Amino acid sequence: MGPFITFLTDYGLRDDFVGICHGVMARVCPAARIIDITHEIPRHDVRAGAIALAEALPYMPDGVALAVVDPGVGSRRRAVALELADGQRLVGPDNGLLWPAARLGGGVARAVDIGHSPFALEPVSATFHGRDIFAPVAAHLALGARLTDAGRPVHPGDLVVLELSAARVEDGSLVAHVRQIDRFGNLQLDARAAELTGAGLAPGDRPRLELADGPVHDITYARTFADVSRGELLLYEDAQRRLALAVSDGDAAARLGLAVDDELRIGPA
Amino acid sequence: MGPFITFLTDYGLRDDFVGICHGVMARVCPAARIIDITHEIPRHDVRAGAIALAEALPYMPDGVALAVVDPGVGSRRRAVALELADGQRLVGPDNGLLWPAARLGGGVARAVDIGHSPFALEPVSATFHGRDIFAPVAAHLALGARLTDAGRPVHPGDLVVLELSAARVEDGSLVAHVRQIDRFGNLQLDARAAELTGAGLAPGDRPRLELADGPVHDITYARTFADVSRGELLLYEDAQRRLALAVSDGDAAARLGLAVDDELRIGPA
Amino acid sequence: MGPFITFLTDYGLRDDFVGICHGVMARVCPAARIIDITHEIPRHDVRAGAIALAEALPYMPDGVALAVVDPGVGSRRRAVALELADGQRLVGPDNGLLWPAARLGGGVARAVDIGHSPFALEPVSATFHGRDIFAPVAAHLALGARLTDAGRPVHPGDLVVLELSAARVEDGSLVAHVRQIDRFGNLQLDARAAELTGAGLAPGDRPRLELADGPVHDITYARTFADVSRGELLLYEDAQRRLALAVSDGDAAARLGLAVDDELRIGPA
Repeated sequence: MGPFITFLTDYGLRDDFVGICHGVMARVCPAARIIDITHEIPRHDVRAGAIALAEALPYMPDGVALAVVDPGVGSRRRAVALELADGQRLVGPDNGLLWPAARLGGGVARAVDIGHSPFALEPVSATFHGRDIFAPVAAHLALGARLTDAGRPVHPGDLVVLELSAARVEDGSLVAHVRQIDRFGNLQLDARAAELTGAGLAPGDRPRLELADGPVHDITYARTFADVSRGELLLYEDAQRRLALAVSDGDAAARLGLAVDDELRIGPA
Repeated sequence: MGPFITFLTDYGLRDDFVGICHGVMARVCPAARIIDITHEIPRHDVRAGAIALAEALPYMPDGVALAVVDPGVGSRRRAVALELADGQRLVGPDNGLLWPAARLGGGVARAVDIGHSPFALEPVSATFHGRDIFAPVAAHLALGARLTDAGRPVHPGDLVVLELSAARVEDGSLVAHVRQIDRFGNLQLDARAAELTGAGLAPGDRPRLELADGPVHDITYARTFADVSRGELLLYEDAQRRLALAVSDGDAAARLGLAVDDELRIGPA
Repeated sequence: MGPFITFLTDYGLRDDFVGICHGVMARVCPAARIIDITHEIPRHDVRAGAIALAEALPYMPDGVALAVVDPGVGSRRRAVALELADGQRLVGPDNGLLWPAARLGGGVARAVDIGHSPFALEPVSATFHGRDIFAPVAAHLALGARLTDAGRPVHPGDLVVLELSAARVEDGSLVAHVRQIDRFGNLQLDARAAELTGAGLAPGDRPRLELADGPVHDITYARTFADVSRGELLLYEDAQRRLALAVSDGDAAARLGLAVDDELRIGPA
């Protein structure tokens, strides 16, 4: 049973880009087992890809993670392979996409620039580095190549950083930020349930939600959507184990007028 | 070559839910080979999922079947693992989803409640039991765990039943029901071609279709859509080897005003 | 580690057709590793499927290629398995779908009609030959069956031909044709960058584009979209390493009024 390669992109499944990359990897490392995390990251949304990758990796088997959300393909952005403090290896563009996953893995122990990797499929195209650079490098690493065989050393401190906001408890309230918004308008926050406990709140409570520009709402800290009436605002722990705001059968982002990174405050009523 | 896990859900492919479950299973049972039957069951449509699962399993290799269409996640509905008379094992919510497949496999020989399975990923979330309960249980069964290791025994007679209608021949006519309607408006019936033979009909015939509320239509019992003119009503054997009603280049459900479970009668003209 | 089967269809992923075929193949050849090239070929578009298959196969590991885009299923069109001069084996309908891939592989060395293959799942349905004929034949070939075990010999000269246009250099200009149009309106030509070099052009040049019916355009031969202004016409090498015409942030097919197979001429200004 071969090594695992986990694979996340914004390629979508309408074209054959994902299938071609699978083929390229199978030719290099026929024993590799590829797990498609998702290929439906919104096109060119590096932040969304970075969050999805960091959330998914703890559920994935050990191996190599290949991620491609790459609005800068063909420009001078770097292509990299990283080895983390915990031994995981990540391959992708150096545009912040790998950064949150790398932090979760203890930070980058070693990095190489794979723009001119000996493992690349030549001639490298201007637009499809997934096929020509990233997939073959990931497959060679899965096959057993050392990171330093894949490219030229880069100082980890020179990598592009993508810092996500962090929630904090302040004056007995939880100060959190919108981390991402799903297609139903549910607002995922950068906080976890434990942090709400730190603000003295427990499921069943009806805390007070204060937005940065003033409006205040009474909300229900619920276990599931079923615990509130239709149209009601609720706070709950979502599938990624993060706190989220939603409107039962409604669109919380529209109702509250909130966007990604907006700050809000949740505290006892 | 490892054991097979077949996998059917209504998660869709836009999110990373399916990919996360693949990762969870690979961590538990790295040798497992996962076959995605489909992840596009209409959201929360337990009946559609139950039919798709029962239709697909006869084409699947032996192993464990994991199915999740679970509108009741987070409520008190049971999560179960079943062992059928024919040795197959099924994992999913106890909401009828597994029932038609279980009947096809000779019925349930043994069942366990896996709501507090030792194999679950703790803490179990309120909304993503696919990741936290169903996938790890399926993977442990694939790895060789006994059913009774996965949870507490449940009497098979206490499982939620999902009975599908059955066609019959009556007074020389076939009395059938709408089993499901696809997105083109084609009406799949609960009858098979052999039952039409029992009503004395063969391909090429022009039987009479009588709806429950009165209207009567002349239809063609055709081999393919190509056998009739545009706009014509036809009866044919569909890809699942069931009889179906369609309108060539049209929408039979709209034309006939029929819904799931409606009864109709097909007989000699 | 088992043999590879590469798999391309127009089935889409909304139904369980692809999953069922995976199951059928796994039952016949449990060791087979299946690579999904794509299942989103536009429905019944044999030409698009043929191009996608021929473009993808050079990136795929050796094995059996299974392709199904089959508007004639249920009619008298032949179902075939082919062995190419280079040893590859292809399985699919005999409607031209396999032809460009077969040419790339050196042409057809041996062909068999698998319409009544001993490997078929009986009874063969009228509408789902992917499940009943193509998938089981592909899996038996992957398992080690000889081509002649799969069906009755057909003379390779009797196969349905799908000839694609070819570009040429004429009077110092490149005469090319529209090969396919993607959903953004980008026009892929049947020429490669090397052929443009033959017409004396290099990236950075501003050649002259002449359409068959007269209009002449100045275009930029660019490396990427980033090299031109918004709304500008450009010529570039696309991800399939073919020359393509596009409008930055626009729809080149609409702007130029071009359709598949239309001829155009590119030469020095």
